[in-house]
Amino acid sequence: MQQLSTSDQNFTAQFRKLVNARRESDADVALQVTDILREVRARGDAALEEYSMRYDGHALTIDDDWVITPERCKDAYDGLDSELRGALELAADRIRAYHEAQLPPDRDFTDAAGVRQGAIWRPVDAAGLYVPGGRAAYPSSLLMNAIPAKVAGVERLVVTTPTPKGESNPLVLAAAHIAGIDEIWRVGGAQAVAALAYGTDRIEKVDVITGPGNAWVAEAKRQLYGVVGIDMVAGPSEILVIADKDNNPEWIAADLLSQAEHDPTSQSILITDDATFGALVEDCIDLQLATLATSKTAKASWDEHGAIIVVGSLDEAPALANELAAEHVELAVADPEPLLKAIRHAGSVFLGRMTPEAVGDYVAGPNHVLPTGRRARFASGLSVLDFMKRTSFISLDEAALGAIGPAAVALAHAEGLPAHAKSVELRLK
Amino acid sequence: MQQLSTSDQNFTAQFRKLVNARRESDADVALQVTDILREVRARGDAALEEYSMRYDGHALTIDDDWVITPERCKDAYDGLDSELRGALELAADRIRAYHEAQLPPDRDFTDAAGVRQGAIWRPVDAAGLYVPGGRAAYPSSLLMNAIPAKVAGVERLVVTTPTPKGESNPLVLAAAHIAGIDEIWRVGGAQAVAALAYGTDRIEKVDVITGPGNAWVAEAKRQLYGVVGIDMVAGPSEILVIADKDNNPEWIAADLLSQAEHDPTSQSILITDDATFGALVEDCIDLQLATLATSKTAKASWDEHGAIIVVGSLDEAPALANELAAEHVELAVADPEPLLKAIRHAGSVFLGRMTPEAVGDYVAGPNHVLPTGRRARFASGLSVLDFMKRTSFISLDEAALGAIGPAAVALAHAEGLPAHAKSVELRLK
Repeated sequence: MQQLSTSDQNFTAQFRKLVNARRESDADVALQVTDILREVRARGDAALEEYSMRYDGHALTIDDDWVITPERCKDAYDGLDSELRGALELAADRIRAYHEAQLPPDRDFTDAAGVRQGAIWRPVDAAGLYVPGGRAAYPSSLLMNAIPAKVAGVERLVVTTPTPKGESNPLVLAAAHIAGIDEIWRVGGAQAVAALAYGTDRIEKVDVITGPGNAWVAEAKRQLYGVVGIDMVAGPSEILVIADKDNNPEWIAADLLSQAEHDPTSQSILITDDATFGALVEDCIDLQLATLATSKTAKASWDEHGAIIVVGSLDEAPALANELAAEHVELAVADPEPLLKAIRHAGSVFLGRMTPEAVGDYVAGPNHVLPTGRRARFASGLSVLDFMKRTSFISLDEAALGAIGPAAVALAHAEGLPAHAKSVELRLK
Repeated sequence: MQQLSTSDQNFTAQFRKLVNARRESDADVALQVTDILREVRARGDAALEEYSMRYDGHALTIDDDWVITPERCKDAYDGLDSELRGALELAADRIRAYHEAQLPPDRDFTDAAGVRQGAIWRPVDAAGLYVPGGRAAYPSSLLMNAIPAKVAGVERLVVTTPTPKGESNPLVLAAAHIAGIDEIWRVGGAQAVAALAYGTDRIEKVDVITGPGNAWVAEAKRQLYGVVGIDMVAGPSEILVIADKDNNPEWIAADLLSQAEHDPTSQSILITDDATFGALVEDCIDLQLATLATSKTAKASWDEHGAIIVVGSLDEAPALANELAAEHVELAVADPEPLLKAIRHAGSVFLGRMTPEAVGDYVAGPNHVLPTGRRARFASGLSVLDFMKRTSFISLDEAALGAIGPAAVALAHAEGLPAHAKSVELRLK
């Protein structure tokens, strides 16, 4: 963990180093993924069978090895204890409500020149959702990806997920039942992403691929961007907590650790205007780590990437937050509004002392799939828009073409495109 | 040019071949671009100087070699003849009006559980716009890329453009003046895209890169997606014209050629329910090609990629159009509405006999930067959204946390994330 203070002489250099420290790209992964994509494109299901055996110890022999049926998902749902089922349903209902209000309106208007124009939003035909196996198999993540697609109106929603040694997570299957997943394929890794993008004999290709995954999955999505739409290039996750001394340091410590426990590459940063409060939070983190079941991961993340930055005044915080462009930003102060206005780059902001980031991971409603690795400078969280596309339209009658056509002719000639000009001129005659 | 008919026995196979025929990727280009990106990232301006000399014959020696000043753009604007200036101004005004209405609303609401939530749209800090030199230096393209960025509220708008042997296009400079470009750098190719993404001593990096370019530029954008935001992966351009026999075949021929004259890889396809009309259009194309100044390019495109598809009824057209997912679709029929409703995948649709696609290239208002190469299945045309990003926010008080917090705790424990659970539990006590 690093301690920084804006009053240090070399703060700017130290902070710059912190911002740029975490490396994401791995040339080896990129080359391996390129090979896997080429194999799946060329050999389809046969390649999937080989990779599944090699990486997941799962034989894809008979039809039942390939899919998890909706009936099995229903059974998993029925088998949940009622508290968990209620929690999943509450999460799904709240996510659905938030994303339904996100549906974009169509436009259709005629302007003063008589030109009718507008745009129509439509869902993609099919979306593929990657769901990791093992430790990172989160039902909340399935809901956060699948529900916006369903709300968008996607007709075919396909999950691919590895089932290492044949095992799957009943909570994930229950979430798939709630979300109304149409197909679940038991393949994982870059090969699953390739199958979704190119299609195989068994797996029909999709138009958009979303969902979290390891470095191979993320790189496969990056390489296939353009063949299909993808949600975003995912990197390591981060939280920035901006807190004054009037917070309970235990709460803030837990918030920082809730990010750190995700992955050793996660980053948790505290900005405070009180060095003593910062030291208290540090002590609480050490105490909590002593009993935390995920302490190995959380400690690795906190030791390697954690930071406490002491500022002279919280007025200095937004400039630093905008450099960090963090995935999650907590504003643990009595009146967070002025800070919210000044923070330009953040995936999601959590306002006030009673809004721990974790409520956003599960049940608040807004999406928890957010831009990471400083990408909040230009990227947004997942939304229904990721599963839709806009078709613009234009309609002219003779009068409207008479009004704006001559300008098109002049510009087409000036650009050296005579057929463009002719297509308008012929109609103006 | 290919002739197809849905009544042919092997139509499906032929059509499938047409849909999949044009190849885009070129492994050689990808490797060359990877090298260029690495060089610019490592050596900055020195690498730009070498590439500029090698590819554009333009020496970047003194400061004046590097930039085109706003004053020079103003001079170019003042020097335009009044018809062209008026045409550019009309285009800019109409593009601006269309895109201003596209600005997304923020959201801020409190639901029944007392959870305040919403989202704020903000512009990116800086956008880079690639403008090709030479034949494809289109002022219309500069307007279509720059105006949405300005409307979005982007504070720093940077153009990079090659100036082969030092030459630039006065129309493009005039358009830059109208659009209010802040900086113009005289560098081109993949190296310019790299400079925009990574930054150099001279060129400060940007957050989003848009704009058309050759295969190297397109591949550089693709490889840098995730380091910066990009508009889209661009491929060869296309038009699909759906026309009944009551059209003037000359008009339809000009529309098809207006796409073909862009590039030998462009594709123009006519779907008609009347074989005789199709033959008339073909004759008109041959006649027009005889006198067209761009006939070399247009003929290469039409011969290699053009097609006339005869259908039994225009009711068959939407299914074919959805497979093609074309950038531009003209519906040259008396009542285009039923066809518009049935066409799910298209970049932009031009309604009726008096709406040639070329009006959309210049002056209609909607953006002419559209998804190509079948990407209308999942992608949209350029819009203000490409220059903005959304930050969600959540705010809970004690009562709201009491209402939804326990569900978050249950899910966090079920996912094996105890610090997530603790951050909520501590506040619920």
